[in-house]
Amino acid sequence: MSEENEMTLTEQILDCYNTKNVSKLREIFDTVPNIDIAEALEEVDDVAVFLFIFRAINDEYAAEVFAELSSEKQEMIINAFGDKQLVELLNNLFTDDIVDTLEDMPANIVNRILRVVPKELRNDINRLLNYKENTAGSVMTTEYIEMTDTTTVGEAIKQIRKKGRDAETIYTIFVRDKMRTMVGTVDLDDLIFADEDVEISEIMNRDFVTCNVNDDQETVANMFSRYDLTAMAVVNKDMKICGIITIDDAVDILMEEANEDVAALGHVAPLEDSYLNTTAFQVAKKCIPWIIVLLVLGTFTTLVLDRIEGQPVFQLISVLICFVPALMDTGGNSGGQTIALMIRGLATKEFEPKDFLKVIGKEAKTAIIVSSIVAVFAFVWFTIEQYTGIVEIEIDGVACSVWKGNCWTSEFFLYALRISLTVAGTLLLSSFIAKMIAVSLPLGVAALKKDPAIIAQPLLTTFIDVISLLIYLGVATLIFNIVG
Amino acid sequence: MSEENEMTLTEQILDCYNTKNVSKLREIFDTVPNIDIAEALEEVDDVAVFLFIFRAINDEYAAEVFAELSSEKQEMIINAFGDKQLVELLNNLFTDDIVDTLEDMPANIVNRILRVVPKELRNDINRLLNYKENTAGSVMTTEYIEMTDTTTVGEAIKQIRKKGRDAETIYTIFVRDKMRTMVGTVDLDDLIFADEDVEISEIMNRDFVTCNVNDDQETVANMFSRYDLTAMAVVNKDMKICGIITIDDAVDILMEEANEDVAALGHVAPLEDSYLNTTAFQVAKKCIPWIIVLLVLGTFTTLVLDRIEGQPVFQLISVLICFVPALMDTGGNSGGQTIALMIRGLATKEFEPKDFLKVIGKEAKTAIIVSSIVAVFAFVWFTIEQYTGIVEIEIDGVACSVWKGNCWTSEFFLYALRISLTVAGTLLLSSFIAKMIAVSLPLGVAALKKDPAIIAQPLLTTFIDVISLLIYLGVATLIFNIVG
Repeated sequence: MSEENEMTLTEQILDCYNTKNVSKLREIFDTVPNIDIAEALEEVDDVAVFLFIFRAINDEYAAEVFAELSSEKQEMIINAFGDKQLVELLNNLFTDDIVDTLEDMPANIVNRILRVVPKELRNDINRLLNYKENTAGSVMTTEYIEMTDTTTVGEAIKQIRKKGRDAETIYTIFVRDKMRTMVGTVDLDDLIFADEDVEISEIMNRDFVTCNVNDDQETVANMFSRYDLTAMAVVNKDMKICGIITIDDAVDILMEEANEDVAALGHVAPLEDSYLNTTAFQVAKKCIPWIIVLLVLGTFTTLVLDRIEGQPVFQLISVLICFVPALMDTGGNSGGQTIALMIRGLATKEFEPKDFLKVIGKEAKTAIIVSSIVAVFAFVWFTIEQYTGIVEIEIDGVACSVWKGNCWTSEFFLYALRISLTVAGTLLLSSFIAKMIAVSLPLGVAALKKDPAIIAQPLLTTFIDVISLLIYLGVATLIFNIVG
Repeated sequence: MSEENEMTLTEQILDCYNTKNVSKLREIFDTVPNIDIAEALEEVDDVAVFLFIFRAINDEYAAEVFAELSSEKQEMIINAFGDKQLVELLNNLFTDDIVDTLEDMPANIVNRILRVVPKELRNDINRLLNYKENTAGSVMTTEYIEMTDTTTVGEAIKQIRKKGRDAETIYTIFVRDKMRTMVGTVDLDDLIFADEDVEISEIMNRDFVTCNVNDDQETVANMFSRYDLTAMAVVNKDMKICGIITIDDAVDILMEEANEDVAALGHVAPLEDSYLNTTAFQVAKKCIPWIIVLLVLGTFTTLVLDRIEGQPVFQLISVLICFVPALMDTGGNSGGQTIALMIRGLATKEFEPKDFLKVIGKEAKTAIIVSSIVAVFAFVWFTIEQYTGIVEIEIDGVACSVWKGNCWTSEFFLYALRISLTVAGTLLLSSFIAKMIAVSLPLGVAALKKDPAIIAQPLLTTFIDVISLLIYLGVATLIFNIVG
């Protein structure tokens, strides 16, 4: 056993193949989770070996392993399988998994699959394929258990035994009235604990939540988190059930959204696969566009900095230029904080663009508190920087710092304080404005139904850099009263 | 009805209270999800009114609403309830919810609760309270169904009917052998479809996954996502079951982690409650520390910039200073992309610090591709900036740009190209180094068991700003050959 443990799962599987030890292979398939097996098979490059091993998987697991494989491997299997085998495999897959598979397949394979599956399944697949991407309809599945509210508990359990094998979940039963309108849900445990001849309308949950086929998938996934659901009905506008979404799909959507938000804040397009499964070239492709967009947007900053540098006040008091990165960084950080709060709040549907006034009101208060405290701190800190000579200021061409022992005169002190006041005053304004832009941009972008994470952040940096510089020029001119 | 729909839930509830319409109140509690009710009650400020309404909630929902309330409201209820009522409420709560409640309560309330609950529950609570924060042990619950592998299906279903009411889930049954070692899990649906006299060892899943009591809660939550679980056993080192974790808790952990990652990338401490439930002052408190830390760290940049600005090459070719923000931003963005990929990869446990070599190898390749392409683009773009006069370069004191019609001489062109080469060359090196630091820092921080999201990002910015400036000085000196 200890030797086996040092082998990777792929090696163990290939070892069984080489020694033609099919029973050992089956034992592995039996005791190792399907996703681990799928990942191990992903590394088997020889097509014949891969197909041999896949065929050795027990029928009941084969569909699950298939659903976890990459589309390249799925295509291999579909091409190798005869129509009969293929139908058997597809029958063991849930409709939403078939649809996921089809979305990545070439047209000839899609046509073949649609040709071989039973008519009813074909209709379901076509319907799901027609829902707009990222809607509840596009991620739901059609295998669920539905009953009328007058069904008795005993009858319900009988129906579950009969139809449950094909359902994605039997833990939530969806209840409709005789007009086919959804009126409740019943948890399997409530059925198990109830008397056999009670009608399910008496024990069903009436405080259920549903979503509409056209709802955004993230809105739906967040409802799973808020309401602690394991399954939710997807209904049309007449409250007729069209399908269901289960918690495992909701978790995938939530994780994908979190990855997208983090990627957007890091200015990188989200990876389609895991980092380790993505080639360096593919990662680079996700990185380059944003770096270049930001570099081009940065041109505005360069343009303004170049103009400002030539202004008399900066020519005469050249030390002011040294504080430019600190100003830009702090403005950017202050706005970035608000952006992060907005992006996450919008992603988790905690607030929406229509809450604009409420959110901007709160953020205005926050901005006043943060900007004031940062400005006071900056005033003290920048004075210390000058006093200690971290930044060397010059008076009449003589560099002054405590190390040179030539300052700490009242002239130096007042001069240093005016510089600190300039920088701190700029920070007070720019940090406040940064937060105000940072609250408006994501909500505005979201109101236009675009992803705030992707668009808002790069625009913010450019805005804030330019605005900080202009404020800096204004405040410096005011305080030193030097105009050309 | 239409009038009611315009009232908020809180107003509807208060309206029932004012008109003493208890049956209407019960109807609301019956048809509205518990979390919505808890949120509505949160806004009822009058203690007497709040308690009256809470007491009107049906016993079966009261515990669930209680679990969703803020600790202030929970304290109100505990103080108002007599011992008997309190025990009844606590008995309807799952142990993990009691522990969550206790963690936010003053000592006298904790003592009262521990005094009134039955001895067995007290032991469970004490045990859970003793697990280290953020471990699987601290979030697990002790209400689960465990059976020996020799139990028959018929007997198992009988036991579920008897004990299931108190379990957090009956959909996964945990199976142990006679030595109390965990050997499998059985899904309720497999029990329902199996013959009554089959032993559960024959139908149980042997490819189950477990976690250890001391495992990090995020590692565990990610296993739910990877393996599509709805419940997982938490075991000790001898594979004896200590408790279980259910999917709803795993989803909460995953969402919390995502919020923390986004917050860290936005340089803001994660909020403890939702944004709208957090006061402006509390939000400001989460924002200020990082802004100030970053401002102080930025001192290194100011220090270096101040020294570099005085170097002969920057004195003579003052236009070079205009590119400093673009250089710093691009370096920061390049590193920030890698940080985002690392933080998310580490958070979702896709890779670990021990995969350092694999990850750094891939990122080195990515860095070469990205840096080269960005440098080539930057070379072209910065030349365009100079040609169009976005950045005004001066030769012998005369500003040149295409608008002034005084350039496009070979002298101007060569000069502009050398400047572009300086900036692009710096970018090539700094962007590569930024990615290398950005891959090492988070993995290093994670290896020290600290949260990479919080520590790595601010350090990165400072490193990259300083390194970019030093490289810029080196490259400029090399290309223009001006040394003081």
